[in-house]
Amino acid sequence: MSISTLRNKTLLASGFHAPVPGEIDVLTDVLIAVDGEGAIRSVLKPAEEGYEAAKQAAIASGTLERLPEGSYLLPGFVDCHVHAPQYPQLGGALDVPLEVWLQTYTFPLEARYADLAFAKRAYSLLVEDLIANGTTTALYFATVHQDATRALVDICLEKGQRALIGKVAMDNAESCPDYYRDVSVDAALEGTRALIDYVRMHPENGEGRVKPVVTPRFIPSCTDAALEGLGAIARECGCHVQTHCSESDWEHGYVLSRHGVTDTESLDRFGLLGRHTMLAHSNLLTASDMEKIRVREAAVAHCPLSNAYFAGAVFPLRAALEKGLHVGLGTDISGGPSASMLENCRAAVTVSRMLETGVDPAAGATDRAGGQPARIDFRHAFHVATAGGAKALDLPVGQFSPGYRFDAIVIDTRAKAGSIRLWGEFDSGEGILQKIVFTASKANITTVWVDGDVAGRE
Amino acid sequence: MSISTLRNKTLLASGFHAPVPGEIDVLTDVLIAVDGEGAIRSVLKPAEEGYEAAKQAAIASGTLERLPEGSYLLPGFVDCHVHAPQYPQLGGALDVPLEVWLQTYTFPLEARYADLAFAKRAYSLLVEDLIANGTTTALYFATVHQDATRALVDICLEKGQRALIGKVAMDNAESCPDYYRDVSVDAALEGTRALIDYVRMHPENGEGRVKPVVTPRFIPSCTDAALEGLGAIARECGCHVQTHCSESDWEHGYVLSRHGVTDTESLDRFGLLGRHTMLAHSNLLTASDMEKIRVREAAVAHCPLSNAYFAGAVFPLRAALEKGLHVGLGTDISGGPSASMLENCRAAVTVSRMLETGVDPAAGATDRAGGQPARIDFRHAFHVATAGGAKALDLPVGQFSPGYRFDAIVIDTRAKAGSIRLWGEFDSGEGILQKIVFTASKANITTVWVDGDVAGRE
Ligand SMILES: [Zn+2]
Ligand SMILES: [Zn+2]
Repeated sequence: MSISTLRNKTLLASGFHAPVPGEIDVLTDVLIAVDGEGAIRSVLKPAEEGYEAAKQAAIASGTLERLPEGSYLLPGFVDCHVHAPQYPQLGGALDVPLEVWLQTYTFPLEARYADLAFAKRAYSLLVEDLIANGTTTALYFATVHQDATRALVDICLEKGQRALIGKVAMDNAESCPDYYRDVSVDAALEGTRALIDYVRMHPENGEGRVKPVVTPRFIPSCTDAALEGLGAIARECGCHVQTHCSESDWEHGYVLSRHGVTDTESLDRFGLLGRHTMLAHSNLLTASDMEKIRVREAAVAHCPLSNAYFAGAVFPLRAALEKGLHVGLGTDISGGPSASMLENCRAAVTVSRMLETGVDPAAGATDRAGGQPARIDFRHAFHVATAGGAKALDLPVGQFSPGYRFDAIVIDTRAKAGSIRLWGEFDSGEGILQKIVFTASKANITTVWVDGDVAGRE
Repeated sequence: MSISTLRNKTLLASGFHAPVPGEIDVLTDVLIAVDGEGAIRSVLKPAEEGYEAAKQAAIASGTLERLPEGSYLLPGFVDCHVHAPQYPQLGGALDVPLEVWLQTYTFPLEARYADLAFAKRAYSLLVEDLIANGTTTALYFATVHQDATRALVDICLEKGQRALIGKVAMDNAESCPDYYRDVSVDAALEGTRALIDYVRMHPENGEGRVKPVVTPRFIPSCTDAALEGLGAIARECGCHVQTHCSESDWEHGYVLSRHGVTDTESLDRFGLLGRHTMLAHSNLLTASDMEKIRVREAAVAHCPLSNAYFAGAVFPLRAALEKGLHVGLGTDISGGPSASMLENCRAAVTVSRMLETGVDPAAGATDRAGGQPARIDFRHAFHVATAGGAKALDLPVGQFSPGYRFDAIVIDTRAKAGSIRLWGEFDSGEGILQKIVFTASKANITTVWVDGDVAGRE
């Protein structure tokens, strides 16, 4: 693929997007016009008025680009939950209990980001690899460190990835190790404020492609004073908020016993539950938690792989979507062992089916089953990985519609090193997308655009 | 990688194998000598006597090959359950109910293999792709067709994949469509015999790298007369046997009602349960089924992905291994949507954890859990994908030991298009294998050997 920037160009392409949960809009030979700032000006289908004229005009002005046969255009993926510092241990330490995972591997690794050179090396590789995997937007937990987190901001701007980045706040001495925490409430709050300022005043961030995020790690790692202060900052700055919510039985029970209410309710009381809040996991939400999240227009980041490794239960995605909650998909690097949103789409489908049927062969079929329809298919998985996550984050991306940013990827189904095989006589329409979701891989992703420009390594 | 054949050569390499369930043997700078027929003559570790002399001798005779830094040697994967004709629909039709999947997609697709040209095209691509994914041995269900199944035999011989191949027997008019079944008991038996003869007398198959398999699709699709005849053939020819066993509640119940006993018991009565029998899925085995399989030294092909799509329950792999059953891993193409044994290793770990914890967040933690330890980790997954499957099939492959065939793959952890990232300061020993299992992909597999020769496309 030799297509570079699409700013001020028109792309003739076939592909897919999913603005509505559970529905795939098949795009065949559409014309997508991108303006000089990387926003989509128009999307024309062949049957629509003006299509032919627009095509001829683009040809005449030399601004028409075409995807080759066998290549498909998709919205870039929106990864709603990434622990940026944990990338070096992706795929590692999944054979140990949670406590060992945290104390022996994860906290010491995150503490390493006090070393700015290490941080730059690790974050550069992470951002490059996520872009290569087609992730055009990522919501990042960084670490407690100011300099390293600023480096992540710089790297996302430099490599052209849309990103929402939070300095992690964790000041509770009772649950955080001495060598890795905010030394005081003030340190947590001042560090959060400093990062917000850094992002917003960054000279390369005029378009606001990187945004700051208020990021209490989770309730157990924060004091009430810190949670209160972070709620105030979120209100004052109008920032995004991210945290973990009701992930495991232990954590869910801890908050109930400390605050007498669920995570959701507690976050709400601290002013941390709003239109721009992303709650990771949220497996153990009660019915009233779900209702509160819906009313506040907050969102859940569903992380299907880490459900198996750390939550011990599957988030009921279908029920949440049917209730009208905003939901995005997250890799949860490195609690989930894959940096690929495609692999996470497949995992979302797989775990939803297990939630519906149950898993235990020793139980009879009826006892085994969860009792309510829980299965989703590739349509919902693709939606939450793109338009759903974008809506959850309130960002104009994740679909091909006028006014949205042109954040997109190309799946080359003929890539030699790739893993998808299409058969002319069998595959057509949205069935092609199903095959992409289940069998395509990084080697099939040939171009990644953010704001109409090519992102990633040169 | 420019290493080609390893026959009559010595390889200096680091890597991993897992002859014992749950244990990884880390190989560091071992010398593996391969003889002129592709068998392993010796494996020497640096501390062992004769290591240095063997190394110098190989250097002197110009027969030493070395894996480059960052590349690791693994046994090739043994895929214990593949429906070869279903490859064109890999990743498709997973959003429809089983009945539609079978009648609208799968049976019509399998019927297409009456067309020999189509069969050759599809099977060539399948075998090439499985080899590229590191599968050096595959146990294949073909179709009812004689010519197409012979073509699969030819293609495996030509491309150098070790394979066990069965003409599918399915003669029950009550459950098989008119357009796709053996027209009579005799057709099922004669076709099976004819394929056995073809494989055994094949001029290119002097080493027996391809073996014939007696293959009743599953009990519901066969008449009792066919099952009886197939049992007799298996006994008479000493062939491998493969079938599906107690996969879903429907199927398990069907056999109980038709034969008054479980699948396992019924297969045993027909003479189809022996040392060379591979039972796909087997999710719903009773305790006495497991005991019978153990006593007969038969084996189970665990297919973790298709557990979610078609079985509605997870095979209790850990319990089976603890009871001493032979178990291999299977992709179940295309009931499982991945041709990658690495992806299936990860799935095996993931579903085992879900079986242990349960999945339903609406249930309390205790009610949700399966009640017994079920989780496995990368060690067991890697074992069943290699040495476990080999032992189940009674083949001298899957590990690096004298007398075993040199069937192996190279994982290049530095491949540009790959998906694994190692960090010198964090990764060592078996932790590297854990990362390979969870994050490596086809693009990291650079060389595949069967019997010491390079397999696959030139
Ligand atoms: Zn997390
Ligand atoms: Zn099968």
